[in-house]
Amino acid sequence: MKKTGHFPVHTLAVGWLLLFHLPANGMPGENSLNILPIPENLTMRTGRMAIDKDFDVVIRCHNTTIIEEAVTRFLGRLQKRTGIPLASKVATNPEDAEFEIHCMGNEDKVQSIRTDESYALEITEERARLSASSPVGVLRGLETFLQLTDIDTQSFFVPSVKIEDHPRFNWRGLLIDVSRHFEPVEIIKRNLDAMAAVKMNVLHWHLSDDQGFRVESKVFPGLHQLGSDGKYYLQSEVHEIVAYAHNRGIRIVPEFDMPGHSTSWLVSYPELAAAPGPYNIERQWGVFEPCMDPSKEEVYRFLDAFIGEMAALFPDEYFHIGGDEVNPKQWNESSRIRKYKERNNLAENHELQVYFNQRLLGILAKHGKKMIGWDEILQPKLPESIIVQSWRGQASLARGARQGYRGILSYGYYLDHMRPASFHYAMDPLGNEAADLSDDEKTRILGGEACMWAEFVNPENIESRIWPRTAAIAERLWSPAATNDIESLYRRLEYIDGELISLGLRHRTLYHENIQRLAGTMDVRPLMVFAELLQPPSLGIRKRAQTYFSHTPLNRLVDVIIPESKSAREFSNLVDRRLSHSSQGPASEKIRESLRLWMANNAPLQPILDRSYLLKEVQPLAALVAELCKCGLEALNYLDSRQIPPQSWQEEAAALLTHAEEPHAEIYIAILPPIKKLVEQTTITLQ
Amino acid sequence: MKKTGHFPVHTLAVGWLLLFHLPANGMPGENSLNILPIPENLTMRTGRMAIDKDFDVVIRCHNTTIIEEAVTRFLGRLQKRTGIPLASKVATNPEDAEFEIHCMGNEDKVQSIRTDESYALEITEERARLSASSPVGVLRGLETFLQLTDIDTQSFFVPSVKIEDHPRFNWRGLLIDVSRHFEPVEIIKRNLDAMAAVKMNVLHWHLSDDQGFRVESKVFPGLHQLGSDGKYYLQSEVHEIVAYAHNRGIRIVPEFDMPGHSTSWLVSYPELAAAPGPYNIERQWGVFEPCMDPSKEEVYRFLDAFIGEMAALFPDEYFHIGGDEVNPKQWNESSRIRKYKERNNLAENHELQVYFNQRLLGILAKHGKKMIGWDEILQPKLPESIIVQSWRGQASLARGARQGYRGILSYGYYLDHMRPASFHYAMDPLGNEAADLSDDEKTRILGGEACMWAEFVNPENIESRIWPRTAAIAERLWSPAATNDIESLYRRLEYIDGELISLGLRHRTLYHENIQRLAGTMDVRPLMVFAELLQPPSLGIRKRAQTYFSHTPLNRLVDVIIPESKSAREFSNLVDRRLSHSSQGPASEKIRESLRLWMANNAPLQPILDRSYLLKEVQPLAALVAELCKCGLEALNYLDSRQIPPQSWQEEAAALLTHAEEPHAEIYIAILPPIKKLVEQTTITLQ
Repeated sequence: MKKTGHFPVHTLAVGWLLLFHLPANGMPGENSLNILPIPENLTMRTGRMAIDKDFDVVIRCHNTTIIEEAVTRFLGRLQKRTGIPLASKVATNPEDAEFEIHCMGNEDKVQSIRTDESYALEITEERARLSASSPVGVLRGLETFLQLTDIDTQSFFVPSVKIEDHPRFNWRGLLIDVSRHFEPVEIIKRNLDAMAAVKMNVLHWHLSDDQGFRVESKVFPGLHQLGSDGKYYLQSEVHEIVAYAHNRGIRIVPEFDMPGHSTSWLVSYPELAAAPGPYNIERQWGVFEPCMDPSKEEVYRFLDAFIGEMAALFPDEYFHIGGDEVNPKQWNESSRIRKYKERNNLAENHELQVYFNQRLLGILAKHGKKMIGWDEILQPKLPESIIVQSWRGQASLARGARQGYRGILSYGYYLDHMRPASFHYAMDPLGNEAADLSDDEKTRILGGEACMWAEFVNPENIESRIWPRTAAIAERLWSPAATNDIESLYRRLEYIDGELISLGLRHRTLYHENIQRLAGTMDVRPLMVFAELLQPPSLGIRKRAQTYFSHTPLNRLVDVIIPESKSAREFSNLVDRRLSHSSQGPASEKIRESLRLWMANNAPLQPILDRSYLLKEVQPLAALVAELCKCGLEALNYLDSRQIPPQSWQEEAAALLTHAEEPHAEIYIAILPPIKKLVEQTTITLQ
Repeated sequence: MKKTGHFPVHTLAVGWLLLFHLPANGMPGENSLNILPIPENLTMRTGRMAIDKDFDVVIRCHNTTIIEEAVTRFLGRLQKRTGIPLASKVATNPEDAEFEIHCMGNEDKVQSIRTDESYALEITEERARLSASSPVGVLRGLETFLQLTDIDTQSFFVPSVKIEDHPRFNWRGLLIDVSRHFEPVEIIKRNLDAMAAVKMNVLHWHLSDDQGFRVESKVFPGLHQLGSDGKYYLQSEVHEIVAYAHNRGIRIVPEFDMPGHSTSWLVSYPELAAAPGPYNIERQWGVFEPCMDPSKEEVYRFLDAFIGEMAALFPDEYFHIGGDEVNPKQWNESSRIRKYKERNNLAENHELQVYFNQRLLGILAKHGKKMIGWDEILQPKLPESIIVQSWRGQASLARGARQGYRGILSYGYYLDHMRPASFHYAMDPLGNEAADLSDDEKTRILGGEACMWAEFVNPENIESRIWPRTAAIAERLWSPAATNDIESLYRRLEYIDGELISLGLRHRTLYHENIQRLAGTMDVRPLMVFAELLQPPSLGIRKRAQTYFSHTPLNRLVDVIIPESKSAREFSNLVDRRLSHSSQGPASEKIRESLRLWMANNAPLQPILDRSYLLKEVQPLAALVAELCKCGLEALNYLDSRQIPPQSWQEEAAALLTHAEEPHAEIYIAILPPIKKLVEQTTITLQ
């Protein structure tokens, strides 16, 4: 057997020609800019400013440390983008500088939801001027400038443009769960780089859960020593990351989930729990029984000391206390807690949790922090200073706003649900459910957060699950509500994804490595073709499929395939194009070519699947995909020849589609929906 | 114009199916292992040892620091390759360990050409045992183990095998010129990682030349302060790199080129020169006049102090003094030097250089160093302790060996000549020219060095110029002379290239970025298809094409395209296959498909070339490639239909081929040779 091993991407480029043609050429206009997120106001003008060896920058600002560092990074990236030595082009003669950066505001020592991120960027043929009232506005504007950079017949350039930009929402976050699987410092930094590139401003760091406690505590060292399997951040690393984020205009909001989701704390400190223990780090996924005991004063003493330590480590004004999914079992079974509830007139467990949260509020206030927590914390009796993070949905968020609470949306932004970027893009924190809110109530909806829960992600695949889809959420939260062009979104996502890789993100490289791993030393190309037709399911499907442990290797095909396949999306567009006409057209031929290619792929794919223990489970899936392609081809033939398929074919096709809708080896078939459309159309149009 | 930006490689995988088929399947045997370099002795046995979660390692060695660190890296890579948590699998019960590492030798504080790199690796169904007499042998064996790792129906595994391995040559180097373009520390480290993966053992660090002096000198700070444009290695960075290399079994041999190629020294220290100066850093490429003055005692005092400082910084026993390409002009024009030559009976300049080298020898000896230098230093009167590095060729090397001098080969290993891996692979230090040498004389030929001269490389393209081609040289220098299967080499190079990328090398990522840069925000795919058909020329062609300066951006297509295109090579193989038969066969159809694809690519390519100032120069080249493809198609049609092409066609084709043989925009057409074969065959077979 010949095994050519790693597949040099250079040689692949011939394929696309067969499937797709470039649209007609023309000069780029406003609609072809690759800015993401799209600015609030953008006016294109004629002309452009050259970026050549004479380009230089002058900084006119009061407080320039953060800006100077940002300009150094900016020039390095501009040099990379042009190949022209620009890395140290700070103007020697400030009067002549091509790019002037103007900022009269001082740097916030700690950024907040009140930090002004607005900026104005005006580019003429001679000069560019970026002005902002705060340094963070300058950071945002520099990203826009980089995204405007392009090449034309004369030089690299930025187009003449006038931009006035300002985020629609002030809270544009990404949650990274480092408890269920740990992520090392460099991965957090890479994500911060990517967030900054798309103007996100909050990293919500989910630092503790049943499966791991991930920060060094000097006050309670048992937390990280026995709660983390040795995988935790040193306090020095936390400082480093907080500073790194600050320099990119990103706040770090730490989450320590309590009173539930806290098993990892209890390994060393079982006395905090509502049941005696002992406790071990949880190794599976779900909602578990261990829970803190709100009736014990020592719990509050512990949390006072702990929060005091963490409050100093994390400078942000908000402190996320989790508060979600309290399993009532331990509380119900504890006679002590039952008595405590009676004594304090707390009829229900949720009232006990309100009591716990009120005590926490006091502790947080003592240490200068405000509370943020999940939906469950939203109960009467809590002050309006809290922020509620809604995983339940826009209605819940709007209800909170009516009651006077501020909130952020995460429902619809769960990256582990493996939905397409277009799905997240359609999810507006001020959607229909907020239509009846007053303007005042609307201002209470602060924004949203993409959530990367980590049951099924680890350092090898996390970047491919977060990016580039999260950029769609970043745009939803920054750009005007009317920014809704899906085609434009996908065009820009693809371009921005290249920029993220240039910034250092490794999802493309890791994808290749992880696919190659499955094929061993064999030629990986047939497997790559196959992987393009698939998509991973949401975590629910996976949890139901088998029992997972936190140490279960994530090295199967389902762990590697990316959430959204471009091949499948383009194929789907072709099918839509074909079905928008009643007869055969150029789209038919391309659909046919694709389906034939994918069918032909099955022969070289089989020996790879035969040989790899990790791929054995997808053999039925491969056969199914080949059958589906054949079925799609037959459907297309019926449609193109305007024949009615026989009843028996229809029945077989329906059975095949039904079978294909189930996950196989925990994997969905990404090209199923367009094939289904073809099949269904044969009966709609022909009968 | 639609501009879809960065091209996600996932979607490319369909193309290969059209061009190539997988050969028949079978179980992997000795010939399908992806080991590179191939070991001296390898015996395959039946069976295999599983690598699963129970895999662990025990180290049984006298001196284990270097080995412990190597095993940690090894386990990290094994974890990455399998996705199974193995990173800390050092055996808890040593008796049961699956993989035993045995080494009774002590670590050389400084590795040398006498360091024993041999190892034995024996793998049975139950256990693996790696034994070596020195820690460096262990390092070599660990790389082999990793390369043996594969997947089968049961698990990851290594095959049962017995390997006894030992390098054919003890000097297997890579020269990196950091003077003409500087390379930052992380790029040096990435190259060291790659070298270790293919068992190379010398980094020849070309640290000074006319265009830059790249090491901090505390004794003569003017050297780096005025000789480097601020681009130099701190002494702390040198220590770091020396240690990094040592831990990977790689020696660092520094080169300070003298008495010529020394302009950068003279900027601060003009008194060393044979003419008064003043001097500036040289900004162009070539052989320049500035030269040290061998007649001045202060030159030797300076070199004594300087070499004393550097001897402490670089622990290797060899110190490379360059010695090449002395321009005689300053020596000839200096009356002082003319008189000095007369006084000392030095008739010719080369005798003066011998004198200079003898003085240097004394200084080196004083500081505990031995001399290595280029061909030119090989003159009677120098002691046999020196090593000569031959850029002139194998005959020169053999002549030296006959005179008693040891030497290494670099002729034929110049990476900037942009020759294919197969060319370098064929270049044997003990080639025909050494056939007459006695066995004793043969032992004086120590090995060779790949040379990456840096006129046209910078941090953005250096990795693509060095890798994977240098791995072919690594194999030539390690494996038995009879290891000569080109198909096997290319299969393994492709696989190993993936391993290098997994180790962190960035040539694939940078290729994408740099190609995208040329296309600006436009869809880059047609440009990628085009780039696959091209190859860069040797530096000589480039220097003749235009005047280059060290600050000239290397951002044109010629700077990005890779030295050896897989598409072109596979196309060439197809043509050979077609021409080995007298009539049309399956190869014809594939050749036709390729040529049609490449012709069709011209339409979508043109708008990109029209728009980019950096691509304008390749418009005629693109037209020429399309014409060539058309001509190739016509030739194939004549061949397949067994028709004699008309005289007029033959003449036009010949003119086209002649025109295409010239570089255009400094670029060669990689698919020209096979197309030429097709055209020429029409007249050979048909007349």
